Amino acid sequence: MPLKIALVQTDSLIGNVAANFNRIVETITNIRNSLVIDLIIFPELTLTGYPPEDLLFRRDFIRDANNAIFQLANIAPEIGIVVGFPELSGDKLYNSAVILSEGCVLATYRKQKLPNYGVFDEMRYFSAGTQPCVFEFKGQFIGLTICEDVWHADIVQATKDAGADILLTLNASPFHSGKAQQRETLIGSHAKAAHLPIVYVNAVGGQDELVFDGASFVTNADGEIVFRAAEFTEQISVVEFENGQLIPTTCEPIYAPISSDYKALVRGIRNYVQKNGFKGAILGLSGGIDSALVLALAVDALGAENVEAVSLPSKYTQAMSNDDAQKQAKIMGVKYHCIPIEPAVNAFTDMLADTFAGTSHDTTEENIQARCRGVVLMAMSNKQGKLLLTTGNKSEMSVGYATLYGDMAGGFAPLKDVPKLLVYDLARYRNELSPVIPERVLTRPPSAELAPNQCDSDSLPAYEILDPILARYIEQDQSADEIIAAGFSPDAVTRAIRLVDGSEYKRRQSATGIRISERAFGRDRRYPITSGYRGT
Amino acid sequence: MPLKIALVQTDSLIGNVAANFNRIVETITNIRNSLVIDLIIFPELTLTGYPPEDLLFRRDFIRDANNAIFQLANIAPEIGIVVGFPELSGDKLYNSAVILSEGCVLATYRKQKLPNYGVFDEMRYFSAGTQPCVFEFKGQFIGLTICEDVWHADIVQATKDAGADILLTLNASPFHSGKAQQRETLIGSHAKAAHLPIVYVNAVGGQDELVFDGASFVTNADGEIVFRAAEFTEQISVVEFENGQLIPTTCEPIYAPISSDYKALVRGIRNYVQKNGFKGAILGLSGGIDSALVLALAVDALGAENVEAVSLPSKYTQAMSNDDAQKQAKIMGVKYHCIPIEPAVNAFTDMLADTFAGTSHDTTEENIQARCRGVVLMAMSNKQGKLLLTTGNKSEMSVGYATLYGDMAGGFAPLKDVPKLLVYDLARYRNELSPVIPERVLTRPPSAELAPNQCDSDSLPAYEILDPILARYIEQDQSADEIIAAGFSPDAVTRAIRLVDGSEYKRRQSATGIRISERAFGRDRRYPITSGYRGT
Repeated sequence: MPLKIALVQTDSLIGNVAANFNRIVETITNIRNSLVIDLIIFPELTLTGYPPEDLLFRRDFIRDANNAIFQLANIAPEIGIVVGFPELSGDKLYNSAVILSEGCVLATYRKQKLPNYGVFDEMRYFSAGTQPCVFEFKGQFIGLTICEDVWHADIVQATKDAGADILLTLNASPFHSGKAQQRETLIGSHAKAAHLPIVYVNAVGGQDELVFDGASFVTNADGEIVFRAAEFTEQISVVEFENGQLIPTTCEPIYAPISSDYKALVRGIRNYVQKNGFKGAILGLSGGIDSALVLALAVDALGAENVEAVSLPSKYTQAMSNDDAQKQAKIMGVKYHCIPIEPAVNAFTDMLADTFAGTSHDTTEENIQARCRGVVLMAMSNKQGKLLLTTGNKSEMSVGYATLYGDMAGGFAPLKDVPKLLVYDLARYRNELSPVIPERVLTRPPSAELAPNQCDSDSLPAYEILDPILARYIEQDQSADEIIAAGFSPDAVTRAIRLVDGSEYKRRQSATGIRISERAFGRDRRYPITSGYRGT
Repeated sequence: MPLKIALVQTDSLIGNVAANFNRIVETITNIRNSLVIDLIIFPELTLTGYPPEDLLFRRDFIRDANNAIFQLANIAPEIGIVVGFPELSGDKLYNSAVILSEGCVLATYRKQKLPNYGVFDEMRYFSAGTQPCVFEFKGQFIGLTICEDVWHADIVQATKDAGADILLTLNASPFHSGKAQQRETLIGSHAKAAHLPIVYVNAVGGQDELVFDGASFVTNADGEIVFRAAEFTEQISVVEFENGQLIPTTCEPIYAPISSDYKALVRGIRNYVQKNGFKGAILGLSGGIDSALVLALAVDALGAENVEAVSLPSKYTQAMSNDDAQKQAKIMGVKYHCIPIEPAVNAFTDMLADTFAGTSHDTTEENIQARCRGVVLMAMSNKQGKLLLTTGNKSEMSVGYATLYGDMAGGFAPLKDVPKLLVYDLARYRNELSPVIPERVLTRPPSAELAPNQCDSDSLPAYEILDPILARYIEQDQSADEIIAAGFSPDAVTRAIRLVDGSEYKRRQSATGIRISERAFGRDRRYPITSGYRGT
């Protein structure tokens, strides 16, 4: 007998059980009204969203999520509904999935492998399950697992050994560059080893620093990808099994990495703005590459009518910066302001003249400029209820080449995990779709324009050298000796590492940004501020 | 045969294995030069400091810590040295303690209970040990455990069952109000249940949001505290056992709670400033109670010569605020500046006049004032290399009654975990030691002075009502219904909870502060910013 399965790539709202419950019911109702379906599968922790973090300690929240399961059981008794929820049993909490059928809980599975690395803290909240789960449904034996489980061959094999013909896995697997390919390869290999088809349903949507990419898929018992859903979009996909084989169906092509990165950033911005109820976004547009890319991303995420760009020139700002900023704002059709900052800079300079008498000019004066911009942008954000986007990139966040409460002021940092060289790649990629960033912005040397004729390369190694050093030090935990042995100059390595080590205090107060690497700043990299560790 | 044990309450520098190694060697050398000692015990993870966080993923760091153990073994072969370190074994890392004797590792213990709640993330890094550890030393059978272990009666009992006559436990147990009493009571009860004396050695010192209080102690086999060390200070204590009984010795009295809280804040400020290499501290002194207390704490931590206070009056600042600020600065002997902010406020008002034309006055204008103060204070901080202390308290942090990049600007937040009512208690306590805060500061109604005749009570429930609501909601995870059932007005509860739920984005960019409660903002309370959870 064939088995028709709907894979629901959904974007749950963290913490709002009632809203998520309503979405689930609506989805089920829509599906049954238009299709004949046997099974509907939702992602991990569907009812709460993922990750709910310390909301999981709230008794009212857990109670609501558990009660919702019983209400769901009667929505569509003729269909098998698979949803994820935090299951309270005695005083223990499990990351669980249930299959609901004919008004009852047919089976419950408790996640066995609780990730507690990277951005994950599941051992903070959950007890681990110890048993595979296989249930009989319409004559087929179906196994259930949750996310991290299927990254472990032994769990897949144990579920097969318990009698499964097909394995369903509910996921909230966050994106990073190349993650979809990594998933397909690894989980495909486990499917092949156990000779067990796997149906992989992933969440979608932005949640603070995480973006879930969807990209659900089905692998057959030979580990081949026989179905692939769209990435970064909510989607209901229907697949049909006959005798444990997937009936051939249309399938998305393999995702292109640069396009996935771009989509992740767009989705992350859109969801942050929408889910937090902002009336749009604003940003400081400097004429440099970072803010140019952020403007393009913001417009792609929110629409031009919801984005405002503000130039904030000082006496160090070159005319071409203003020209290019204005030009891009015009191309993209966003509201554009130009507010020179000299009056505020002069006011502070006068106010501090006595206190600073006899001292020499240093980064203090550069910071004052950046902070005057921060005050103006935050005032515009506050007045209109629009989110201020910061424009700094990962290279700058790494070495602290940014001003706290200045250019770092803002609620969300789209490029926080995008190194400078990737900023250029993404800008060129965006311009290939349609030219929105003036060419000169892509070719002129990067500058903070906080002092006369300033260039980033005055203070930092060239980004072609800096970015790979940072990736090795930050993402791969290599020591200075290892990086130097790989061919980088000791001077550049020492300088870069010293700057990274000394900038943790800035990062700790930085806006949340979208994770697209295997190690982003934020929950993913937990370093002490006070630290005697010296990488060099 | 008597056994002389030195309990070393030491303040390791996170991340600097070489510096910690040198401190350990120096301590051992000093002890052996002046005393006849059998055993010297250092706290948990002595060689790395606690918590090293993601430094534990760095291979060079782990290698250095493991190599140091072998070097330590030969420092004083005639003495037993017990130290904590992250032990690498194969590809597993353990939170371990070794006893070094006669140039060898006599025994190694691997922590069995890995805390992964509250501020702790040990399962992120460590594998758990599975065995008790008892070794024979000078004719006595001595058990070893580490911190969380002795909070579990079964581990104490298992160590006794393995033959221990005395249990040594190495700790890095962070302070919160009443923690020392809690430790003594619980661990005393486990000692009594297993009829096993416990020697408890704790770390001391501030590490970002944590303060370790020392307060080492010895409980006899009846669970009675027979020795108690000083709190919040590095100390070497010597105790002597004869036939498993402690020879009576002088002992610190039970610590007074308000005094412990005050000392925790002083120690936290001092260590943050010193360990991060600041040349002192500055703060904005408003004439209100919060900044008055922070000034007192800073002077007690750093000395008057290292602290500067800055008044930043606006047109809304009352004369008594300036008078009281100046008065306290004079009493405490700190450098005092007065920098009116009107010129900067006027500059921004003019710069934004066109953009804001037709809009009405709202919190935007209040925020501009607060941010002008932030710019001035940060400029003074940057110019001199002095740490800017923020002065906001926990009640304000809870409800978001603070301006991002304004009064929230700064590197360290001493009162971040101190609710408003406790701010008053601590101020009164400090004035009892010597009167430093003008009486009027303690008695006038709290005001942010950002609008004419503004009072906190215009926007917030009275602190006598607000603070207990916040404690129930934030620290005890009570729901609105539960708090209302406890007798609080639905209006006050609803308002407070809505403000807490909506302020996570501010807290996420706030300065690190000192944890003195059982749940502080920071690593201790991990909430999503984007959240549909509504406590009401």
